[in-house]
Amino acid sequence: MADSVTTVAQLRELVRTFVAERAWEPFHSPKNLAMGLAIETAELMEHFLWVDCEQSRDVGNSPDHREGIADELADVACHLLNLCNSMGIDLSDALAAKMIKNARKYPAEKYRGKFEA
Amino acid sequence: MADSVTTVAQLRELVRTFVAERAWEPFHSPKNLAMGLAIETAELMEHFLWVDCEQSRDVGNSPDHREGIADELADVACHLLNLCNSMGIDLSDALAAKMIKNARKYPAEKYRGKFEA
Amino acid sequence: MADSVTTVAQLRELVRTFVAERAWEPFHSPKNLAMGLAIETAELMEHFLWVDCEQSRDVGNSPDHREGIADELADVACHLLNLCNSMGIDLSDALAAKMIKNARKYPAEKYRGKFEA
Amino acid sequence: MADSVTTVAQLRELVRTFVAERAWEPFHSPKNLAMGLAIETAELMEHFLWVDCEQSRDVGNSPDHREGIADELADVACHLLNLCNSMGIDLSDALAAKMIKNARKYPAEKYRGKFEA
Repeated sequence: MADSVTTVAQLRELVRTFVAERAWEPFHSPKNLAMGLAIETAELMEHFLWVDCEQSRDVGNSPDHREGIADELADVACHLLNLCNSMGIDLSDALAAKMIKNARKYPAEKYRGKFEA
Repeated sequence: MADSVTTVAQLRELVRTFVAERAWEPFHSPKNLAMGLAIETAELMEHFLWVDCEQSRDVGNSPDHREGIADELADVACHLLNLCNSMGIDLSDALAAKMIKNARKYPAEKYRGKFEA
Repeated sequence: MADSVTTVAQLRELVRTFVAERAWEPFHSPKNLAMGLAIETAELMEHFLWVDCEQSRDVGNSPDHREGIADELADVACHLLNLCNSMGIDLSDALAAKMIKNARKYPAEKYRGKFEA
Repeated sequence: MADSVTTVAQLRELVRTFVAERAWEPFHSPKNLAMGLAIETAELMEHFLWVDCEQSRDVGNSPDHREGIADELADVACHLLNLCNSMGIDLSDALAAKMIKNARKYPAEKYRGKFEA
């Protein structure tokens, strides 16, 4: 599978099948999945904890870290897609809608090169 | 855009363009993006904080919460895809690889209906 | 040491000495410490991830979990006090001031038995 | 109240009274409190999100940020102490015990000036 030819629905189906084969749906309430997502995100942060912002750009060049980071990104995606499945929310639609809101909030000409804070 | 016809690459491009139009790449070190991802995840959790696990299945039925949750899921996706862009990691590939590891760690016949802990 | 006879300053000094003996101050910027705090918090959440809210009240009765939870609470406290040291903020004073704000925001008679959301 | 003369037990009592006056104990399961702690931690991280590690040392010098950060540190402490109350765990004792473990894991002479990772 590669991002260029894989639809979001295909990734969602991959996650849905995995969960269904184990009958894990009863444990996967939105509350638990959101909590699990936060835990995976923290594990991702660990890779960048003690390095400076600029140094963090190089962390992914070490093969060991790279595989670990790819695994954590996958775990985050897994929980995110699981939540979308569980709540019946279309992620592409949600992202497209949010980017329109973001573009209104942060007009390109005004925020070019400036903090979004 | 809908998950059924949208590739992950198309979502990544949506995020990449938004960032490039604002020249925000200098702020988007992996360290900062991972931190931002954790912050967005916490905002998602807020929707489910004071309800019980079972009650959390109904939170998305309230139209107000539903839009807020969709927005937070989009924010999480936005940071996740931004990280993939910044680190040159293929998310579909990473997810497929991780699901194979997960399947080995949690054989379906052994874990059916049981906690993954 | 016991909470009944230990001042917050004594705990802060315990943390300060540990850090100073290792000359770790250069790594302990507020940004890194806040990130570390979030990571420790996620490790604490792990103990309660797959149980229901009510079940989570019993998790601490298992001796194994209890020691793990006490360790995570200590790690959270360690980062919190380290941050207070690093920023020169008096925690008791900050907490007392915040509780006054909270009492104004959530008058007891109005919020008795009701969600704070 | 000041850290130099305030015991941890006094801070715990401040939190306990606030919760009891609102009869919020039913909502304050360890699971919910750990989740709330993670949310407050994320709000603390927001103050340091887009600045570099070194710059983050100056964030607390701006009076506006300083009050916001003190409030977030207080919120984190509030949830942490609430959890200790709810689980009957002595925080000073837990911290002292954890620091002994940490000292064994990171001997001062070996880790002086080096990353704890």
